[in-house]
Amino acid sequence: MSPDLLLARRDLEFLLYEWLGVEALTARERYAEHSRDTFDAVLDLSAELAAAHFAPHNALSDAREPRFDGETVTIIPEVGAAVRAFAEAGLVSAAMDESIGGGQLPRVVQQACFAWFQAANVATSGYPMLTMANANLLLAHATPEQVGRLVPPMLEGRWFGTMCLSEPQAGSSLADVATRAVRQEDGSFRLFGNKMWISGGDHELGENIVHLVLARVEGGPAGVKGLSLFATPKYVVDASGARGERNDVVLAGLNHKMGFRGTVNTVLNFGEGAHRPGGVPGAVGELVGEEGRGLAVMFHMMNEARIGVGAGAAALGYTGYLRALSYARERVQGRPLGAKDPAAPPVPIVEHADVRRMLLAAKSYVEGGLALVLRAALLLDDQHTHPDEAARERAGALLDVLTPIVKSWPSQWCLAANDLAIQVHGGYGYTREYGVEQLYRDNRLNPIHEGTHGIQALDLLGRKLVQARGTGLQVLLDTVRETAERARATGDTVLASYADRVDAAAGRLATAVAAAWESGDPEIALVNATTGLEAAGHIVVAWLWLDQLVAAHGREGSFHDGKRAAGRYFLTHELPKVEPMLDLLGGGDQLFNEVDPRGL
Amino acid sequence: MSPDLLLARRDLEFLLYEWLGVEALTARERYAEHSRDTFDAVLDLSAELAAAHFAPHNALSDAREPRFDGETVTIIPEVGAAVRAFAEAGLVSAAMDESIGGGQLPRVVQQACFAWFQAANVATSGYPMLTMANANLLLAHATPEQVGRLVPPMLEGRWFGTMCLSEPQAGSSLADVATRAVRQEDGSFRLFGNKMWISGGDHELGENIVHLVLARVEGGPAGVKGLSLFATPKYVVDASGARGERNDVVLAGLNHKMGFRGTVNTVLNFGEGAHRPGGVPGAVGELVGEEGRGLAVMFHMMNEARIGVGAGAAALGYTGYLRALSYARERVQGRPLGAKDPAAPPVPIVEHADVRRMLLAAKSYVEGGLALVLRAALLLDDQHTHPDEAARERAGALLDVLTPIVKSWPSQWCLAANDLAIQVHGGYGYTREYGVEQLYRDNRLNPIHEGTHGIQALDLLGRKLVQARGTGLQVLLDTVRETAERARATGDTVLASYADRVDAAAGRLATAVAAAWESGDPEIALVNATTGLEAAGHIVVAWLWLDQLVAAHGREGSFHDGKRAAGRYFLTHELPKVEPMLDLLGGGDQLFNEVDPRGL
Repeated sequence: MSPDLLLARRDLEFLLYEWLGVEALTARERYAEHSRDTFDAVLDLSAELAAAHFAPHNALSDAREPRFDGETVTIIPEVGAAVRAFAEAGLVSAAMDESIGGGQLPRVVQQACFAWFQAANVATSGYPMLTMANANLLLAHATPEQVGRLVPPMLEGRWFGTMCLSEPQAGSSLADVATRAVRQEDGSFRLFGNKMWISGGDHELGENIVHLVLARVEGGPAGVKGLSLFATPKYVVDASGARGERNDVVLAGLNHKMGFRGTVNTVLNFGEGAHRPGGVPGAVGELVGEEGRGLAVMFHMMNEARIGVGAGAAALGYTGYLRALSYARERVQGRPLGAKDPAAPPVPIVEHADVRRMLLAAKSYVEGGLALVLRAALLLDDQHTHPDEAARERAGALLDVLTPIVKSWPSQWCLAANDLAIQVHGGYGYTREYGVEQLYRDNRLNPIHEGTHGIQALDLLGRKLVQARGTGLQVLLDTVRETAERARATGDTVLASYADRVDAAAGRLATAVAAAWESGDPEIALVNATTGLEAAGHIVVAWLWLDQLVAAHGREGSFHDGKRAAGRYFLTHELPKVEPMLDLLGGGDQLFNEVDPRGL
Repeated sequence: MSPDLLLARRDLEFLLYEWLGVEALTARERYAEHSRDTFDAVLDLSAELAAAHFAPHNALSDAREPRFDGETVTIIPEVGAAVRAFAEAGLVSAAMDESIGGGQLPRVVQQACFAWFQAANVATSGYPMLTMANANLLLAHATPEQVGRLVPPMLEGRWFGTMCLSEPQAGSSLADVATRAVRQEDGSFRLFGNKMWISGGDHELGENIVHLVLARVEGGPAGVKGLSLFATPKYVVDASGARGERNDVVLAGLNHKMGFRGTVNTVLNFGEGAHRPGGVPGAVGELVGEEGRGLAVMFHMMNEARIGVGAGAAALGYTGYLRALSYARERVQGRPLGAKDPAAPPVPIVEHADVRRMLLAAKSYVEGGLALVLRAALLLDDQHTHPDEAARERAGALLDVLTPIVKSWPSQWCLAANDLAIQVHGGYGYTREYGVEQLYRDNRLNPIHEGTHGIQALDLLGRKLVQARGTGLQVLLDTVRETAERARATGDTVLASYADRVDAAAGRLATAVAAAWESGDPEIALVNATTGLEAAGHIVVAWLWLDQLVAAHGREGSFHDGKRAAGRYFLTHELPKVEPMLDLLGGGDQLFNEVDPRGL
């Protein structure tokens, strides 16, 4: 598949350089070795590798999903070849420190590069994505000794990483994690328990798999305060970093999914006795970070994974949009509505208003979704490398607020773009031959994993918008206002009217959040949290569209005209949807608390 | 699977007897042999047969879809057994005239009965659905001689029926149908051409398949005016009604779909020379109805199929909702938001506000969708059997307006209910083990076939709401107003406030339609037709919810409390969504005409 059907290179150029001004990052010490040329080189390399190694087996790994014969997991060999090519190109460590061999690429550029792989094959890209997030957690929280043993083989593509949170009885509710960690006399730990929904949990793609496992040290407090994090590799790693004997981490079975099938999804048993490393029962686990701080440490990986999920959702939506657009330009069917002569030649369906509606909607979702993801990635850069301390703090506060939106908004609306891509294709879109139905099935996972849609809503409305006396919300409002002022300063009356709409909507959001929280009771305040999340998401994306329109202002040609059309669509057809949502949020309707479940 | 997870028998009772007052139909001559007892007996029989013969192979026929070896199509044997059981119970002809052995059941009751089969296995129920609609078309438009030969074997379940409209180059655009019908010296016809997307187009489930084929008699006018309809059986039927030699209708291939896999979907070649019935080239076809009136005649089947599609969408959504509800009552996870003690026992997820939101939304969609379908079916009864001529006319006018909504609204919103059913199940919903993902995949066909969502929008906004000087729209407004008045007459202030909302929304719809049409130019008027369809659909379903709430008024107990909760949800959380839609429709935004497709 041509890279042109994966992502739009021209749009990436716009987003990174014309809109986000990423080139300016090279003035910072961390990125001093970089230039627009090096950024472009990695972007081009990514597009090329994604098209050559990831896209070709996307349909195949859906049709022939991983199999487990009771002993080993078999995955089609193209997956292993693709992840090796990815690692050999140095892409696992592209954004990591030079000190461990990384490329010190800005996260925003790295995220754009990785989107090519997600668009080409989201399931295969799941393996490096988890491995990178795992390594990043270890780099931030493990001891140098642990990093030295565990991380380099991951960067070389020889070892893989996972995150093990959920259990059969504890999905969204991590307070109920029951896996036990038993302290040994030498201070090490042995783990006993079952983990569920573990992506990449077992396979033969590499030499080892480092599981990061949330478990409960015996005797600790109940709830999330009792959780600690343990690096628990499939094969025990000795003090020299060499791979040793088989650890007692055993595959209990595979989950067979609607989509995302190429990413093996597993049930894992820890310490059930299939192996006895060192002759002792239990899976060998080494504590990462402080005891009792497991959830906080895990959030390092979860936050990265949440942005990764949003990025994957945006990439899946994006490639679906491009395929629908290509189809709509080629497929000839019907005539303009006013045409009277049935013998007149039919037109490409892109000429029909309703097809344009679907394409513009999809374009506004996928370009808006990718913009959101890249803006968040730039905040990650700013949080760590902005020269000004206050700016670093603001970036961190804004990123905190945006993270649940980055996770959930593309998972909802870029999935909607995939749905529209099916519809643009008509009956063909419903066949497995055209591939857009697979994109929908793959993307449908995204509102579920890494915290469901409802969990993101509780995070946003229950924590992010109200914690620290609403600092995060205030930074968001200030940033929106700053964009609105730049829009007005262009002197363009259309932009000014959009600025008024976005600014007003952000203000209404703040008022509605305050009204929802008036009682101070979380059960009352959060009853419409999902509606609040969806309203906030649309307002944030409307703000980012406004910001893109400011960047496109005064530039001519069909690319920038397309930005203006998609921005106009979002601001005039989508943003108004938030009004009834904010009415509900602010009105505090308590239906979902009041309803008697016996009547359901 | 228990019938309790397919449809709610208690709700059917409410809809048919408490709300629609179907028992009163037995006063009409056609239904004089019937009583509530006979209605209930057929409903119970349907539930039983659906659970025993249709549900058990629903997942299997998805996993093992029909196969074509170049000679014959193989379908798992359970499908044939199920359709035989259906026919042997007399259900094919349940609503047809006694004169041909039918049961003269009201259509509204027959539709409710059939919903059990659609909920149990929409793909298998596709075969009898198409056969019934085919037979009904023949009963209405074929000569008595044709009926005598072609229809009885269908009623006995020995023969099947299809509809053949689309071609590879003509899906939505029937004006471009190119299949040729060549008149023979004896006045009969031979057909030549290719048909696409033909459900049930070839299989070995019975002895013959009667295709109803739109084709163009040579020398006729271009466009839809040149289309005629031909009964073209797989095996030629002689004058005695006996099955004769193989006709030149040949399977060219199968389409492999995202869902709905048990219904074989085919590409058929007519007259390509594989067979030469009577030694003459071409597929033998017999004209049904007048020459040049093919599309009008075909609409008899299309309108029935459109209601059938809406019914299938509602049934799929309904069973998904019931399964999600059952899961939510059993699955224990998490604690109330205000709970401080992590050691407190976790609660069933139906206790969480966001799960209740999803369940109430789904309930309002699926009960609203089924109400819509049954209301339309009752209009069909009234159109033909109401004792008052003016009432018959009004019923026909209202049914005309409702048909595109009956087709499209459940296809959108009961599909959304299936999406919510996945989400309620969390990760389990995304696995193939729980079955709700299949319901989503099956239902995703419904916005595409029998006229896409966009085609329904053009039908509603371009024809149904404006033809005959808006008679249909006026009947709709009058009917909504009459319901609103009954709601106010209850003296219940909540019902009165809902009545005001629904009434006002219907009025705003009429104003917006008039404003959209102000220029008289269809390209300008219909640019936001889909938005108009979606607004109209929500207003119609809000009206039906109001009407249900009036029927439930004064009745106590958890069933009626559940109706009130779902109705409240729809009227306060869903109906407000139409405001921005009506703004767009009435405002006449021309973005989709103005956008330059080069910028997409």
